[in-house]
Amino acid sequence: MKVVIIGGGAAGISTASNIRRFNEKIKITVISLEKQIAYSPCAIPYVLSGEVECFEDIVMHEPEDYLEKDIKIITNAEVFKITSDANKLKYRIKNQSGDVEKETSYDYMIIATGATSFIPHIEGTDLKGVFKLRTIEDGVKIKSYAEKCSKAVVVGAGLIGLETAYGLKEMGLDVAVTEMLPQIIPRSLDSDMAKIVQEYIEKKGIKTILGNPIEKIIGDEHVEKADFGEEIIATDMVIMATGIRPQIKLAKMAGCQIGRWAILVNEKMQTSVHNIYAVGDCVEVFDAITKQNTQSPLGTTAVRQGKIAAKNIVGMKAEFKPVLNAMVSKIGDLEFGAVGSTKAGAIHNGLEAIAGKSRALTKARYYPGAKRIDVKIICDLKGRIIGCQIIAEERVAERIDTMALAIARGVTCFELADMEFSYAPPLSMVIDPIILAAEDAWKKLRPLKKKNH
Amino acid sequence: MKVVIIGGGAAGISTASNIRRFNEKIKITVISLEKQIAYSPCAIPYVLSGEVECFEDIVMHEPEDYLEKDIKIITNAEVFKITSDANKLKYRIKNQSGDVEKETSYDYMIIATGATSFIPHIEGTDLKGVFKLRTIEDGVKIKSYAEKCSKAVVVGAGLIGLETAYGLKEMGLDVAVTEMLPQIIPRSLDSDMAKIVQEYIEKKGIKTILGNPIEKIIGDEHVEKADFGEEIIATDMVIMATGIRPQIKLAKMAGCQIGRWAILVNEKMQTSVHNIYAVGDCVEVFDAITKQNTQSPLGTTAVRQGKIAAKNIVGMKAEFKPVLNAMVSKIGDLEFGAVGSTKAGAIHNGLEAIAGKSRALTKARYYPGAKRIDVKIICDLKGRIIGCQIIAEERVAERIDTMALAIARGVTCFELADMEFSYAPPLSMVIDPIILAAEDAWKKLRPLKKKNH
Repeated sequence: MKVVIIGGGAAGISTASNIRRFNEKIKITVISLEKQIAYSPCAIPYVLSGEVECFEDIVMHEPEDYLEKDIKIITNAEVFKITSDANKLKYRIKNQSGDVEKETSYDYMIIATGATSFIPHIEGTDLKGVFKLRTIEDGVKIKSYAEKCSKAVVVGAGLIGLETAYGLKEMGLDVAVTEMLPQIIPRSLDSDMAKIVQEYIEKKGIKTILGNPIEKIIGDEHVEKADFGEEIIATDMVIMATGIRPQIKLAKMAGCQIGRWAILVNEKMQTSVHNIYAVGDCVEVFDAITKQNTQSPLGTTAVRQGKIAAKNIVGMKAEFKPVLNAMVSKIGDLEFGAVGSTKAGAIHNGLEAIAGKSRALTKARYYPGAKRIDVKIICDLKGRIIGCQIIAEERVAERIDTMALAIARGVTCFELADMEFSYAPPLSMVIDPIILAAEDAWKKLRPLKKKNH
Repeated sequence: MKVVIIGGGAAGISTASNIRRFNEKIKITVISLEKQIAYSPCAIPYVLSGEVECFEDIVMHEPEDYLEKDIKIITNAEVFKITSDANKLKYRIKNQSGDVEKETSYDYMIIATGATSFIPHIEGTDLKGVFKLRTIEDGVKIKSYAEKCSKAVVVGAGLIGLETAYGLKEMGLDVAVTEMLPQIIPRSLDSDMAKIVQEYIEKKGIKTILGNPIEKIIGDEHVEKADFGEEIIATDMVIMATGIRPQIKLAKMAGCQIGRWAILVNEKMQTSVHNIYAVGDCVEVFDAITKQNTQSPLGTTAVRQGKIAAKNIVGMKAEFKPVLNAMVSKIGDLEFGAVGSTKAGAIHNGLEAIAGKSRALTKARYYPGAKRIDVKIICDLKGRIIGCQIIAEERVAERIDTMALAIARGVTCFELADMEFSYAPPLSMVIDPIILAAEDAWKKLRPLKKKNH
């Protein structure tokens, strides 16, 4: 049996490695458009900030490493033709001496083509000094360009935008981060929680411009200014962190059904073409809370989907469960994370929801170095937890994981308030901040419950 | 309505505060044997180590603070007579000018008498330089005595024993910690995991003597040697961290039924006498894994039981759920935690169990400062998780909480291996160490599953 995987990112490599883990005989070929495979794109901003020393560090494996596992990796190669009726595809390897075209066949194909940066159609995006941030090559270009600059504007205050803004600030640039919506991290945090992160990055010296979309980039050859209508900012470079678009061209060519956002797959990660699977940023997934399809462009989702696809291809049973989009980030010393729906998102999707909040400490009150922690838990009117957001200078990520499990298992805020948590003075409070937030939610739901009886 | 609470520790104070939180009218009196109430006994070793500056810091509230909440606190007072038929009790306040006897009545009484140190009946425990560690007064005595010593032996390598040994080592003493069982932390960790903690404390310069019970303490007035049969150690002081005994004398006097270990209560925390409740270290609880009664002498258990008792007394519904004994500790830079049953404990209780393990990192491999993390997950033969142990120099406590929730909600290792975890390079690995351990368990169960089909 022969499997061809298109794409050498987290999703493609996870699929390849997992197939090999479960089956030693299947022939596996990965065809990658990029020169580097198996690197961690999430880490690019941390190279800018200097927290990770260099781009070489974030490349986990070289193509040759996979030969040991008998996985063939073809880099710098573009698939340009798929004939799914015949189970064949053609690709072009780009060499310095010229391109070489090749053809191959497959029993199963996995589309792991990922996504590309979405750049809005505004004037000036073709100027020198305008960058997208998606691949390691983008990172290298931004870093070397930034070294000669003193000012930068990052358009888009999602995770990547903020992390990049912080990275450039740490490089010594004057940085403004801008967002067309009136808050930062609009996808994952409610505005009250986003405000806490905003205050932190402003204290770090990063300017924020919210509620103003970029109208054009001004300059003569090089970027000179970014125009936000009401405000025009002089800058040497502009990073467009304005979202992504799933790469679905090849899937379409193969005859795979496309959904609202991306490639449609079933819970086995199988497309509408029976022997073609798709994984990673190029597919759409089912949202556990809204019960609608959504995107989940996260490294963890890609890795998990690769495992599910691999298991099904080798003949084991496995289903990819609806996503909660658990995420976490670290900017400077601040960690923030979220899982499930925001309160605003729930209401936007027609769900009635309340929120319980706590502001507490990460250690016993008297223990030196205790940090402030903010927790927000979102529940439906029956008390079932549908979302959570946490911000603190330590110990956020694993609390998000606890809440991801709580949501996945249908835990209510009433149950959570009585749950067992571990405790030691240097590590936690005797009543966990999560319990305090659950009790706050419980207090708000009690009168509603009584009214309904 | 009038409630009298006997005991001013975490359990008693939690009951008092929660009753007040839910009801403003009930008269609440707390009678405490100790001078200090509402302090954190778990923090005493951290005062010895110098991580917390002084004993005053770990006193959360003074008796006067409770007057604001209209809770009356009577300290230095010993209840010596309970007439439960008449709902009356007598107590003796110890003043410098002499004792004063008083009588009071109650509608509800809460017994929160805690536990005392268990000291084995061996020769020499009455020598000067032999200490127990239970109350803040014990802590003060140990610290001032240790300041004049150069060598200490801690008998008992449970949590308190180890934390105290580390505290004394940090004070500059030569310290040996001893355990009659062949491993440290025998209650919470399997021997393979305990070994990791043992290596750490030995690297910190603490000597361990395992598998040897103390036979006698030798000295003429002052401690001079501790005799372990095969080994005799010269020492200036001996700390007996040899376990606790629930204080059940008053409960017996009140006619409350006693179980195998301590006071019997139902899920409302009510004793066999309908208007007497009991909470904290003096009660026995139901173990979620072994389905047998057990002890749960943890601050978190005490606080949670106080809340349950309070809710029931004010007329709200609440049940104390079977315990998993989630615990965590920090010694130096090492965190270790456990929840549910050990593998050895499961087998001892007649449960068939397997274990999955992982040794991984706390951050992305390339991210500076990533620490080693060890995870062990224990499952029954159907894959249901019944225990977990984690050791690392960071990020252990919240992972234990995640696993506590997983066990409480009946999650299997198969489900856990496909669970959603959050990820960012500075905070976690793209595949969480918990998932790796769950997959290891899954790998061991697969052949067993097949065999049964």
